[in-house]
Amino acid sequence: MERGRLEAFSDGVIAIAITLLILDVKVPLPREQGSFLARDLLAQWPAYLAYVVSFLTIGVVWLNHHATLRRLREVDHTLLAVNLVLLMVIGALPWSTSLFADFLTSPHGSSLAAAVYAGSFWCLTAVFYAMQRHILFGHNQLLLERVDEYSKQQIDRRGRMGLLPYLVAVGLGFVSAYLTLAVCALVAIYYALPATMYERR
Amino acid sequence: MERGRLEAFSDGVIAIAITLLILDVKVPLPREQGSFLARDLLAQWPAYLAYVVSFLTIGVVWLNHHATLRRLREVDHTLLAVNLVLLMVIGALPWSTSLFADFLTSPHGSSLAAAVYAGSFWCLTAVFYAMQRHILFGHNQLLLERVDEYSKQQIDRRGRMGLLPYLVAVGLGFVSAYLTLAVCALVAIYYALPATMYERR
Amino acid sequence: MERGRLEAFSDGVIAIAITLLILDVKVPLPREQGSFLARDLLAQWPAYLAYVVSFLTIGVVWLNHHATLRRLREVDHTLLAVNLVLLMVIGALPWSTSLFADFLTSPHGSSLAAAVYAGSFWCLTAVFYAMQRHILFGHNQLLLERVDEYSKQQIDRRGRMGLLPYLVAVGLGFVSAYLTLAVCALVAIYYALPATMYERR
Amino acid sequence: MERGRLEAFSDGVIAIAITLLILDVKVPLPREQGSFLARDLLAQWPAYLAYVVSFLTIGVVWLNHHATLRRLREVDHTLLAVNLVLLMVIGALPWSTSLFADFLTSPHGSSLAAAVYAGSFWCLTAVFYAMQRHILFGHNQLLLERVDEYSKQQIDRRGRMGLLPYLVAVGLGFVSAYLTLAVCALVAIYYALPATMYERR
Repeated sequence: MERGRLEAFSDGVIAIAITLLILDVKVPLPREQGSFLARDLLAQWPAYLAYVVSFLTIGVVWLNHHATLRRLREVDHTLLAVNLVLLMVIGALPWSTSLFADFLTSPHGSSLAAAVYAGSFWCLTAVFYAMQRHILFGHNQLLLERVDEYSKQQIDRRGRMGLLPYLVAVGLGFVSAYLTLAVCALVAIYYALPATMYERR
Repeated sequence: MERGRLEAFSDGVIAIAITLLILDVKVPLPREQGSFLARDLLAQWPAYLAYVVSFLTIGVVWLNHHATLRRLREVDHTLLAVNLVLLMVIGALPWSTSLFADFLTSPHGSSLAAAVYAGSFWCLTAVFYAMQRHILFGHNQLLLERVDEYSKQQIDRRGRMGLLPYLVAVGLGFVSAYLTLAVCALVAIYYALPATMYERR
Repeated sequence: MERGRLEAFSDGVIAIAITLLILDVKVPLPREQGSFLARDLLAQWPAYLAYVVSFLTIGVVWLNHHATLRRLREVDHTLLAVNLVLLMVIGALPWSTSLFADFLTSPHGSSLAAAVYAGSFWCLTAVFYAMQRHILFGHNQLLLERVDEYSKQQIDRRGRMGLLPYLVAVGLGFVSAYLTLAVCALVAIYYALPATMYERR
Repeated sequence: MERGRLEAFSDGVIAIAITLLILDVKVPLPREQGSFLARDLLAQWPAYLAYVVSFLTIGVVWLNHHATLRRLREVDHTLLAVNLVLLMVIGALPWSTSLFADFLTSPHGSSLAAAVYAGSFWCLTAVFYAMQRHILFGHNQLLLERVDEYSKQQIDRRGRMGLLPYLVAVGLGFVSAYLTLAVCALVAIYYALPATMYERR
């Protein structure tokens, strides 16, 4: 498998998942009496916020996915399989985003919805970390350039650290779903702002 | 990041957003009695017009996006981040289009819906302008060829001018939503017809 | 504009439009009493047929689109604009397909729905024909190889002939929507089976 | 037709079909009284399982599609036509997946829904097998490298064998829809895990 077609297919799935997010932002129904559109639009604020946070998160994942694949000399079957699982998790994000947006201001279920939301990001990060470990420490020499042991350990540790915030966000969901949203938003902004995980090195 | 994959991903998101527009044009329900299909189809004219205007607008953005990226020698992180925000706005256009189409003929809320519609185009133009400024005046030399100061100022001014019509369209929404539609349609046709912003130079 | 990115974007829009067709094939609702699934599934036969006919038609358009663009040396702005209109018509096909499937067996409105369905294919063919004329007879030399006057006339005539069947299909809709379906199906199969319009020469 | 654009278009359709699968996993409605979200989410387990099984199956098809096309020197019209039928079946999988998920736990119709689900996979495999036969035994020399008669027979037999499990899965549907799900899941995992059909040789 050439790297090129793997990139193209992954790009396709990620681009579609990121664009499907908007389908979960609903259009209020016109009402017969009185102008409630402003109120109806404002009441949907969780949907807008969830759209922005999920869009940025998937965007950052795309950047990191690209930065990772770019370093590959070769693609083995394990990598293809792990990448497929990664795409499966990304493909599910429009659903978890929609769930979170629908339940954030609901009197019941907001904690669970928040935990599922942050949990889906955690799964994403975990599968990405697994993919990275396979690339760095697998039997096959998949990388274009040799990476010394020290750098490998550093990349690995940074990957492991990336799992923490979403674990915290899952837990905080049981205190308040708003805290989960805040943590997920901060993580997305943190990675979107200065430099991607890889370029920062 | 190579320019190529950034183009491919952006193309993907833009192509999906432009194609999702049709999901907001509804199919009338078959009725038991009498043939009302012609009337039901005609009653949906705002949806058709909004489809055409938004499709042309996104198409023109795609042309300009391409013309801009083609001139790049390199892509830095700021550009990636701004491009991600640009895609986020484009991704939201099916929603603002649907909102506008649903409320255009509604007795209440049409002004606000029109302002949101033109406002989403204004955001698009503003983020595009920010991207352009970063390319022209940023610290990194991102362009393939040197552009002299005079041409830079001209491109910059033209970018700034592009913000005006949508600002007017937002304001006109509070007079009549139909005026907003007219301005947005004219802008789309103006840019679609003769030449793209860049080739016109 | 390089031909490559125009192809990539057009491919994207066509691929998405062709895949969105399935969203209009509904899943019957589970019922509490008795097994009506077989009957419910069979009752949806217009949706399956419309899916197949539209899928093949868009697929053939993709083949022809490719065969046409492949011959280009250059892309001018008019071509970009006409191509955008072509994509706009293709993007609307999931809607006209859905309309046709919903009304085919309806006591009222089936003629109009059939006319709209065949009419959308007619528009598609007409815009494609306009694109072809611009390429063949336009001021700019867009083609890679010179085509002699006789071949141009032949291609042009074949393009014009392609407009006929869908015109007939629109008219037949007012006799019976089933005839429209039959003509559209035959056209799709005719072009899908032996060779594409261009390779047949 | 160059192989490249056929791959790009096929990749596009497959990527979209695989990503549309998530639209069939619904978000439970917030309820006024009591927290039923956990129960509502758990009650949807068939939707999750069907998502995973269909995602993996389409993913494996993508891998095999790629491995097959990569070996081509040339693309003839028959291959284009068969590939279009293949994409048409893939495009229908979000529908059959949704049907299966909706009826799996329904008292009525689960057998038929299971048969349709496994049947859609069987069609996929059958069309893929037809495509392979055309490549191996067709008149045109489409392959990059000569394949000896013995290897052809082996590839052919393996292709034919791949039809069996889904035939069994269709039949088992009339015993229990859960058995169908189990067989489809096992097939997907079997092909996803060790190596793709082609690389295993």
